[in-house]
Formats: sequence, structure tokens, C-alpha cells
Amino acid sequence: MVTRTAFLTGVTGFIGGRLAERLLADGWAVHALVRETSDTASVPSQVVIHRDDGTADALAAILRQVRPDIVFHLASLYLNDHLPDQVDALVASNILLPVRLAEAMTLSGSMRLINTGTAWQHFGGAAYHPVNLYAATKQACVDLLRFFHEARGLSVVTLKLFDTYGAGDKRRKLVQLLVDAAMKGEPIGMSPGDQVVDMTHVDDVVEAFVVTADLLLSSSLSLDAEYLVSGERVTVRELTATIEKALNRTIAAEFGARPYRTREVMLPVAATSDRRLPGWRAYHTITTTIPDLIRR
Amino acid sequence: MVTRTAFLTGVTGFIGGRLAERLLADGWAVHALVRETSDTASVPSQVVIHRDDGTADALAAILRQVRPDIVFHLASLYLNDHLPDQVDALVASNILLPVRLAEAMTLSGSMRLINTGTAWQHFGGAAYHPVNLYAATKQACVDLLRFFHEARGLSVVTLKLFDTYGAGDKRRKLVQLLVDAAMKGEPIGMSPGDQVVDMTHVDDVVEAFVVTADLLLSSSLSLDAEYLVSGERVTVRELTATIEKALNRTIAAEFGARPYRTREVMLPVAATSDRRLPGWRAYHTITTTIPDLIRR
Repeated sequence: MVTRTAFLTGVTGFIGGRLAERLLADGWAVHALVRETSDTASVPSQVVIHRDDGTADALAAILRQVRPDIVFHLASLYLNDHLPDQVDALVASNILLPVRLAEAMTLSGSMRLINTGTAWQHFGGAAYHPVNLYAATKQACVDLLRFFHEARGLSVVTLKLFDTYGAGDKRRKLVQLLVDAAMKGEPIGMSPGDQVVDMTHVDDVVEAFVVTADLLLSSSLSLDAEYLVSGERVTVRELTATIEKALNRTIAAEFGARPYRTREVMLPVAATSDRRLPGWRAYHTITTTIPDLIRR
Repeated sequence: MVTRTAFLTGVTGFIGGRLAERLLADGWAVHALVRETSDTASVPSQVVIHRDDGTADALAAILRQVRPDIVFHLASLYLNDHLPDQVDALVASNILLPVRLAEAMTLSGSMRLINTGTAWQHFGGAAYHPVNLYAATKQACVDLLRFFHEARGLSVVTLKLFDTYGAGDKRRKLVQLLVDAAMKGEPIGMSPGDQVVDMTHVDDVVEAFVVTADLLLSSSLSLDAEYLVSGERVTVRELTATIEKALNRTIAAEFGARPYRTREVMLPVAATSDRRLPGWRAYHTITTTIPDLIRR
């Protein structure tokens, strides 16, 4: 069997790290691009680390050497509400890096890219309506990658994620805060809680990237596609009740103690069958996986 | 009569400079944002120059002081074919600057922006298909400005330009090269010449910006619109013949001496009535304005 080679960005993040582990387990050779200043202590030792000096030429040289079958682009700066002095960082992380990556890929003959977008590009279910500037940078990225597809034949599949969760997630997400509140018996201030969230377990998200890699490797065409990676849909109140039941604990959730966020997404974009990744569905449920989130 | 105040980017460019002159002639107070290193010798002395230090906060402070009625964003880096080390500059000029501008505008309460796009966002007439990375950065900019419209109420009208021309244009554009060849009697190597170009005289382009400013100032709504600024359509062969006739000279045009460009636009996107700027049309013709391009 021929060893496949992956090149990842975002390996120091939650999903990127888990994807690297999965690919290694599946027998891939895994390379990763990290910032010159990144701490890679948490990255599996089998991953070959390449430091990014910020130029397209150096990146192309790395890719010429690595010759990846698939580039998985997961690096991202997420900011729910950006501050004025964070505009530069959003553009640098979410636009300049992927454009430079696509430039380097097409220069070096590496022609299959899996990009990561967000369901928040679709506020109110629109074809495009960004919830926040973060989501707008993700849309901008997709439109820039279109050039590399059309003019240079780069295959690009963008996976648009909703909420993701799983054990070991260091992002301060609601689901972990709810588990912590349940275990500590401490009260937690909540919004009114009637917004629907779409939760996908990290193992299912990782599976979506693997399925997409297979799709790209089995196609002789230059692909250009976007798919929603949609999991379990519940209101925040239902999520809270589900966690209580799964842990057999009561959560002192104070609904309405906080307002909804500005531009709160009350109902995520519909993941109709034509928008879903073919050959993939979420297998993990909140009920069965939430006990893994108890901190030890 | 109340004096209107304009804030321009791109004033050191051809169209921006002509727009500044027109606004001054119309009685506007004109302010301009330029790079710290820009040479402003050619900018009319009545224009108040502000140097951009690259931060959104400083830009917001400038806008709070200027309180412009309209911000005209014409600064742009145009590259027909970019080189790998030009990716950063394209993103900085065509994406980061306008995002920072929109951020500073909404922070400072300046809520009317006229943005400049390109008909090359519509290769083959598509809703979106970029001719080159330059056109893709223009589309990305529109995507990003959408956030400021939706979340913060910024009015944004994007004028998408085709080819522009006029006396004093320092860009090395075909029309000037043809005039020079006619006057010097020197041969000029051409493509086969059957591609259609859409030519708008700079005075008409400037008028389009003025009409758009009136549209924004007369509306009580937050606008979000895009219009094509389309002028006279001729093939390059017809353009050559028109220039010969207007100058009463022969051009030693060697059609087919050069190939078409990669991704040559053979037929620009159709400027159907629903895509045209209301209340505007091109008045100047190539025939009557081309003699102005003779270098003295």
C-alpha cells in the first residue's frame, strides 16, 4: 500500500490536532505548517513540523519537498466580535495565509486543498450573509480560492463547520462550561436559551475531512465544492437538559441572566441534502459522548 | 449652500486625481488618505492630505475630525498577472485597506462608502468568476464590506469599472500605446485583436462617482448595491481603426504578432439595464476624446 502524505495547517488547534492523530492512525505521513513562534509540544511526535516564514516561495519549496496528496487547511483565527486592532490579524490568518498556501500549492504542483469554512457565512439561511467579520473573512477566502481553481486547476473543497465539541477542547465553548457547571454544582448565567445550535463531535468532524480526502483522491477532475458538516440540532435549553441527563446531574442554569449575543444565530442554515458532504453523517451523539468532557 | 466633504483614497492615481479635481470644482471640501511614503506633488493643493499609519484607530481619529459626507475608495493595486511575492501586496491594498477603512468609518459614524470594483469579477459573464487574482481580491472586498453593511448599517455602493482612458493617464494602457504609435509612425505588435473592450472616458467615470454620491446622500436607507460603469464597446481592431480615423493617421498595427493574454476577456460582462448605475450614461466617445491623448 502506498503511503499517503498530508500537509496540515492548524495542527496546534483542537480539530487540526485530532485530524493529525487520525491520519497517523490511518497510515498517512503527516506534515504540518506552523508559525515560527508556535508551541508544538502538543503535536504528535510523528508529525513533521515546518515553520512558516511568511513567504509564498519558501512555502512552495516546502511543498515541493513534501509533495502532499492532500493539503488540509484548518488554521484560523476565530473572533466572535473583533476589536478594531484585530482586523489585521483576521485578514492575515483567514485570508492571506490560505491565498499564500494556494499560490504555493499551484506553484509546486500540489493540487488538492480541503479548506475550512463556517456555517456562519449563512446568517438567516442566506446564500451569503456573514454573522460576523470572521465569517466574512471565510467567504472572502472561498472567493479568492476560486481564482486558483478556475485559473490554475486547483481542486478546492470547503467544509463549513457548525459548533464542534469533544474531550480535550481548550476553547471556552458553552458545552464544556455546562459540563463544568454540572460537575462543580456551580450556577451558570445563560442567555434565554431558545437558539438552536448544531453540534458535531470532533471525531465526526475529523471523519468529514477524511471522507473529503477520499473524494478528492478518487476524482480525476478539478473539484470546486462546498459542504455543510451538520450534526445534532438542539436548542440551548435542550442541550442543557441533555447534558444533565447524560451526567445524571442538575445544572444550575440561569436562563435569561445574559442577553442573546448581538446577531445571535437563532436557527443555523438548513443542512439540506444537496449541501451535505456525500458519504458522511454524524455518528456520535451528545448523550453518549458528553461524559468524556468531565475534567479529571 | 452647505459644503460637502469628501474623503478619498487613491488620490495619487489617475481616476482618483481627476475625481478630486471634479469635486473641488463642484465646491466640495476634499480630504485624502495617502500612504506615509506617497509622493503627493501631483495632488491639487486644496486637497487636505492625511497620512495613513496603518492602524484602524488612527484612521478612525482622522475620520472623526474630517466627518466626510462620502468616502470614495479608489486606492487599488492592479496586477494583471501577479507574481508569488506580490500576493501579500494584493491582499494588503485591495482587502486589508478597505476593511480597515470600513472599520474606521463605522467606528467614527461615517456611513457612506463608494467602493471600486472591476468588471473582471465576471469572466464569461458569470455572477462571479475572477479573471485574475486582482479581480478575486475585489470580490473578497465586496464580501467583507457586506459585514459592515449588515451588522453596522454602512451604506456601500460598488462601482465596477471596465477599461478607462483619458489624457494624462500614466498607466501603460493599450489606447495610449496606439495613440503613441500613430503619432510616431512606429509599428506596434498586437494580439489578434478580436476581443471586445469596453472603454469609458475618465470624465464619465468621475461623473459616475458623483452620481453615486448624490444617490447615497439622497437616500435615508442603508444601501448595498453594485453597478457596472460601462462605456463604448469595440473590438481591439475597431478601436485601432477608430483611433486612426480620429487622428487621421495610419497605425502600423501588427495583429497576431502577440498571442492573446492568458484568460483574455473576449467579451466583457453584459451591462444590462438592471446592472447599470441609475441616472448615469457615458457621454464621451473615443472619436471625440482621443486627440486629447496626443502627447505634447
